[in-house]
Amino acid sequence: MIANLIARRIAIIGVGLIGGSLARALKKVNAVKTVAGYGRDEKHLQKAVQLGVIDTYSLNIKEVVNDADIVVLATPLSTADSLFAAMSGSLKQTVIVTDVGSAKGKIVESARGNLGELFTRFVPGHPIAGKEASGVEASFAELFDAHRVILTPVAETEHEALNVIIDMWELTGAEVVSLDVEQHDEILAATSHLPHMLAYALVDCLSGMQERDKIFEFAAGGFADFTRIASSHPRMWHDICFSNRKQLLKVMDQFEQHLDSIREAIKNDDSDALLNIFERAKTSRDKFTDQRKKRNDSPE
Amino acid sequence: MIANLIARRIAIIGVGLIGGSLARALKKVNAVKTVAGYGRDEKHLQKAVQLGVIDTYSLNIKEVVNDADIVVLATPLSTADSLFAAMSGSLKQTVIVTDVGSAKGKIVESARGNLGELFTRFVPGHPIAGKEASGVEASFAELFDAHRVILTPVAETEHEALNVIIDMWELTGAEVVSLDVEQHDEILAATSHLPHMLAYALVDCLSGMQERDKIFEFAAGGFADFTRIASSHPRMWHDICFSNRKQLLKVMDQFEQHLDSIREAIKNDDSDALLNIFERAKTSRDKFTDQRKKRNDSPE
Repeated sequence: MIANLIARRIAIIGVGLIGGSLARALKKVNAVKTVAGYGRDEKHLQKAVQLGVIDTYSLNIKEVVNDADIVVLATPLSTADSLFAAMSGSLKQTVIVTDVGSAKGKIVESARGNLGELFTRFVPGHPIAGKEASGVEASFAELFDAHRVILTPVAETEHEALNVIIDMWELTGAEVVSLDVEQHDEILAATSHLPHMLAYALVDCLSGMQERDKIFEFAAGGFADFTRIASSHPRMWHDICFSNRKQLLKVMDQFEQHLDSIREAIKNDDSDALLNIFERAKTSRDKFTDQRKKRNDSPE
Repeated sequence: MIANLIARRIAIIGVGLIGGSLARALKKVNAVKTVAGYGRDEKHLQKAVQLGVIDTYSLNIKEVVNDADIVVLATPLSTADSLFAAMSGSLKQTVIVTDVGSAKGKIVESARGNLGELFTRFVPGHPIAGKEASGVEASFAELFDAHRVILTPVAETEHEALNVIIDMWELTGAEVVSLDVEQHDEILAATSHLPHMLAYALVDCLSGMQERDKIFEFAAGGFADFTRIASSHPRMWHDICFSNRKQLLKVMDQFEQHLDSIREAIKNDDSDALLNIFERAKTSRDKFTDQRKKRNDSPE
């Protein structure tokens, strides 16, 4: 299967759920000879070697990237600035750098500011896949299979670099699509970042209630579905909020207006208004389900 | 299995998902000889007979209840007043009346106001089970299996009547628990009614955005989980909102305060505050998952 080889050596910066799953997926199809891992916690990196996720590691990022054909940044977004800065002097001229961050605007600026002329070799990326569990132990090769990966190349991005990263993700089974940086951040604020804020706020709200024990005792499947994402990695989501702050605040304001419309309808006994909102929402949600079925994407 | 018989004749008022599933479950264990159905739509009732969910039906509620040992009200909450009034003169003195409404305060008052001295024979109930699909076609005998049913008897409720309804639900595989009416409505406002409002508001918010097509195209599993409940029956949820208005408005206010805390933290670059909220919420959500696993309740 050597035909699949996209790189001799890949460096995974942050060997967690996403970085680890990418390494596993690429190894599974023999798309890479050596995976080198960087992290701050040596025990964690040793575990990743034991699990066969990476082949080598170092706590010195320069050693990990200096020989790499592809460097994948898979750490929380707030670390991007310092890690780009730390690696920039040690990268090969032919390197391709990519990332997996859930917000693209800030990381593109960070790469632009830190990678110098190698910024043209940076391909911003975002796999739409994940689960609540984090860490390399939770990683698995099929995480991206039949999931979308959004790439947000900019004017400077070299086509050759873009094509290699498209190939890389397609080898994991993912469907690769392109969006503008701005459009990505707006869409993700609405479909992912806002729902996470609502789930965190709901769980925090209920935890603060007098009846909290009974509340959690009687919470049923709908609540479980609704709040599962509140078990997501706090530091990662903290970073996403600040990285996509403008779009997130905008969509939070819009959401509150819609929630207020519901509240006002209930408060004012406005039966027609309330029914109208619920029917409109059900129509949209049912349409979404139909589209999803048609796309035959990850099943609901 | 005649030992399981709890009633010769049961009347199901509203043969939809819940009423139909209860009828199926009781028939499956031979707990009832005849199920009579009432509804407004004759075609729907004919379908229920064809499916074997009910044995007989009438569009005249008096004919359906006059011979019934147990009457189960399983229609949207706003119909309770008129249906209790319509049936009250035709009930046997030994009848037991129960309901399946998601808010208990108003329906208890409705029963008190309409059933006269038979109010002592009314057992307010709420099975914590359901799905987005509605109608008798969606009903199935196992809907309540391993799910909770909350009964909210009041001071006047006769023990014998309560015990029969406990038996009835246990025969469906459900776990029966009791709560005060007030406590029920407070807990359900938090764990069920509020999440539905958030799901409806979120879908309505996103549907109104310029990028709506792209937004729904790129929405992933988290969004799907989060908004599944926005496909629920609009009329039913409309009625629940007005039936549990006071508790729902209270918990909506509390939720907005928590969401505002998150928004303020993001707006003010308050990293510690934001991380603190997310960590607290994750701890609570993880604890909820653990409790759920221990209870071996309906799997997540």
